[in-house]
Amino acid sequence: MGVDLNSDLGEGFGAWRMGDDAAMLDVVSSANIACGFHAGDPSIMRRTCALAVERGVRIGAHVGYRDLAGFGRRALAVPASELRDETLYQIGSLDAFARAAGDRVRYVKPHGALYHAAAADRASADAIVAAMREFDPNLALLGPAGTELEHAALAVGTPFFGEGFADRAYTPDGLLAPRGLPGAVLGADDAVAQALSIARSGKAASVAGGTVAVRADSICVHGDSPAAVEMARRIRATLDESGLPARPFT
Amino acid sequence: MGVDLNSDLGEGFGAWRMGDDAAMLDVVSSANIACGFHAGDPSIMRRTCALAVERGVRIGAHVGYRDLAGFGRRALAVPASELRDETLYQIGSLDAFARAAGDRVRYVKPHGALYHAAAADRASADAIVAAMREFDPNLALLGPAGTELEHAALAVGTPFFGEGFADRAYTPDGLLAPRGLPGAVLGADDAVAQALSIARSGKAASVAGGTVAVRADSICVHGDSPAAVEMARRIRATLDESGLPARPFT
Amino acid sequence: MGVDLNSDLGEGFGAWRMGDDAAMLDVVSSANIACGFHAGDPSIMRRTCALAVERGVRIGAHVGYRDLAGFGRRALAVPASELRDETLYQIGSLDAFARAAGDRVRYVKPHGALYHAAAADRASADAIVAAMREFDPNLALLGPAGTELEHAALAVGTPFFGEGFADRAYTPDGLLAPRGLPGAVLGADDAVAQALSIARSGKAASVAGGTVAVRADSICVHGDSPAAVEMARRIRATLDESGLPARPFT
Amino acid sequence: MGVDLNSDLGEGFGAWRMGDDAAMLDVVSSANIACGFHAGDPSIMRRTCALAVERGVRIGAHVGYRDLAGFGRRALAVPASELRDETLYQIGSLDAFARAAGDRVRYVKPHGALYHAAAADRASADAIVAAMREFDPNLALLGPAGTELEHAALAVGTPFFGEGFADRAYTPDGLLAPRGLPGAVLGADDAVAQALSIARSGKAASVAGGTVAVRADSICVHGDSPAAVEMARRIRATLDESGLPARPFT
Repeated sequence: MGVDLNSDLGEGFGAWRMGDDAAMLDVVSSANIACGFHAGDPSIMRRTCALAVERGVRIGAHVGYRDLAGFGRRALAVPASELRDETLYQIGSLDAFARAAGDRVRYVKPHGALYHAAAADRASADAIVAAMREFDPNLALLGPAGTELEHAALAVGTPFFGEGFADRAYTPDGLLAPRGLPGAVLGADDAVAQALSIARSGKAASVAGGTVAVRADSICVHGDSPAAVEMARRIRATLDESGLPARPFT
Repeated sequence: MGVDLNSDLGEGFGAWRMGDDAAMLDVVSSANIACGFHAGDPSIMRRTCALAVERGVRIGAHVGYRDLAGFGRRALAVPASELRDETLYQIGSLDAFARAAGDRVRYVKPHGALYHAAAADRASADAIVAAMREFDPNLALLGPAGTELEHAALAVGTPFFGEGFADRAYTPDGLLAPRGLPGAVLGADDAVAQALSIARSGKAASVAGGTVAVRADSICVHGDSPAAVEMARRIRATLDESGLPARPFT
Repeated sequence: MGVDLNSDLGEGFGAWRMGDDAAMLDVVSSANIACGFHAGDPSIMRRTCALAVERGVRIGAHVGYRDLAGFGRRALAVPASELRDETLYQIGSLDAFARAAGDRVRYVKPHGALYHAAAADRASADAIVAAMREFDPNLALLGPAGTELEHAALAVGTPFFGEGFADRAYTPDGLLAPRGLPGAVLGADDAVAQALSIARSGKAASVAGGTVAVRADSICVHGDSPAAVEMARRIRATLDESGLPARPFT
Repeated sequence: MGVDLNSDLGEGFGAWRMGDDAAMLDVVSSANIACGFHAGDPSIMRRTCALAVERGVRIGAHVGYRDLAGFGRRALAVPASELRDETLYQIGSLDAFARAAGDRVRYVKPHGALYHAAAADRASADAIVAAMREFDPNLALLGPAGTELEHAALAVGTPFFGEGFADRAYTPDGLLAPRGLPGAVLGADDAVAQALSIARSGKAASVAGGTVAVRADSICVHGDSPAAVEMARRIRATLDESGLPARPFT
């Protein structure tokens, strides 16, 4: 028994850093590593892969739009065939570093605006899944359950794993509530409790009050501030104490 | 018997094109394909790999400095460890498209300013070779014979293949004469004759007069203008007629 | 009497070229010059400005999304405040070259996906106009009449000039018909006739048959192929012969 | 009486930050603001210019090589004519934000590898100065005294101001000692003392022992770590107490 913890890592670029990757690699079991399109560069990719493999953390390709200036957070109307090509490029480049570190890319998770676009748009989701299958039919897809990403994966037999967020409330229909909504972002204590609740019973807080079902094989935690790292550590410790140790979904 | 013909291909970016790739893929036996750092993007890489595999043309990673604005032609002081990482990134990304097309990357050729830097600087040459070996110990290196690139390859058992230029004269010590020198660039007739001379007897024109020995397993031809494409076709035809058909070195 | 002809120029980048700028600068009276975000680099900007000033062609800043890989043709969800900043940056950089050539930036025209976004989205249109006014309250805006771009300009007193297309049909409500629609792209003879019709009587072809009113102070022509250049020359000649010589709207 | 303090600011990009700009703008009298080539983006440029003008801090264009991945710290062989164009582009873009904030660009300081290249290479120095004069003949150049940068400026009447470093030792001939040399980087106490010594008597520590003459109208301080910010504050306070308040050189 256990549950996967994942985090977005390797999100610096050149002289710039983002978050405390080394700390988070002691917390998570799966590392979504940026591939150079929204963040990440070859040297950061090598280091992050090496650190992940040392700790037994699984490597996932965190593929994003080609938008360093916007950190991949701005919707970009990439035609599906180009999106497929850009996804394959990113997986291939990260896999070279994963192999140099002694493992390989095990899964793919879309980043930022691409995550949201592909959850809602089947053509984008299909493009991502097609690139994954071209590269390695065993690659798994990590994303929000019940969305076009899951549909696209299941349609062709790509393994799909659902992701939940510890520190975010959901809409009554099980989607992530936009940050702007009152109650959408949870405090540390509530986030720790929600991580346990998702892992144990698939229940998360609803912005409408009460709980909502969230299918999650993995819980996403953040490392972009000291407070976020501390919250991630508490989540890991609480899950460990509850007999649900961090464990890769792949 | 035969000789390899290679050309730099896939050198467009986004809406921009460079040269007539389809025409050149009917001429050459090895395609040096840009990997997105000095030129090339994922969709161009996919198309060029697919066209190459259809014609039985071997795929090589044309790795360059990260300098789209300068087309990789400007010397850039990349530290050796970063250069190794950037080389591995480029090989990995291109290999994903080569495999999607049914083959894989067979060799590496440095591009532009990196070609010249790594020929003269052992640390740069070692960085390129180290990345190649990490990715696949069978990868071959294509470059100017007798330079640090060859030394770096031979020192660790990486297969090395020398390259000659049909349309360029050499210095008396067997190095490419700078374009600025009188007589450094050959006309079409001389280039055709030199291709045959290099392939048959390893002799090229010297800017000092007479000939000079050039060790070449492959002859580089260009496709960046209609005249260049026509010259490349004549070289191929002349080699064919002389019993030296185009044949991959790998 | 006369009418302005404008064209998108300076759209190369580094070693790449797009269109025949020198030829088009003999045809048009206003040059929309790329500023480095979707295309263009400092050396191209200098050359294009210098050529424009030599021929008495007015210089406009052709501002676009920061998307070299997509040539600014992909919708990008840039927040309005960032769009304002990116617009100001582009105007400022081009004006430096316009001044070095002896003139200055006289107008702004949004490019590609930004053109369409700002025609439909008032916040984007306002952001562009705000940046223009910050730089120079006399800057004019060139774009499709009757859209949010015109509304945004008129609301604050920025001079607005409408643009029509010689080679494109319109929807019955006076908007550019999407390229995919049957009859949306006109042949050379029809384009020449339409340029004259727009200039004389503000009438263009409707995809629904008949004509539709198009308010245009300037007619956009293209130079991205030899056929396009030839069409532009014919349009200019026909307008000249009809007593409507090319004449800057500013 | 007084002395200028300058610092490199606005060196983030997109989601990434570098240093504590707000803190440093309370310390310095001149702000070298990145222009988007080695760091900086339009929104950061606007904010940094606005903060500088609010505090009466002078705005300088911190021009660099086009190398975000290397933060402008890697030597790049840009031909002189392109370097002139890239410098003009950067000055023009920053000036738009300086004017929007109510001031304008007063001076130029080359960044990183360009600083070192232009100090040693007259063609690079001339290119920078030529771009400055094209933009505004009153622009001043800030850089190391006694180098090609000063020679290039003086040759055409461009105002030149020398810069010294508080926390670095010098070679006996008055050049900055490479960081690798023993004793090249000073501790906080020594740096405070050296700032005062440079300002009062033009003397700095020599790596060979003793002192060496350093002609400096401005002292460069750093804000890239909390310790650096603290050191800068102590330098400012010490100079204030010594009757040498921070005062722009322009």
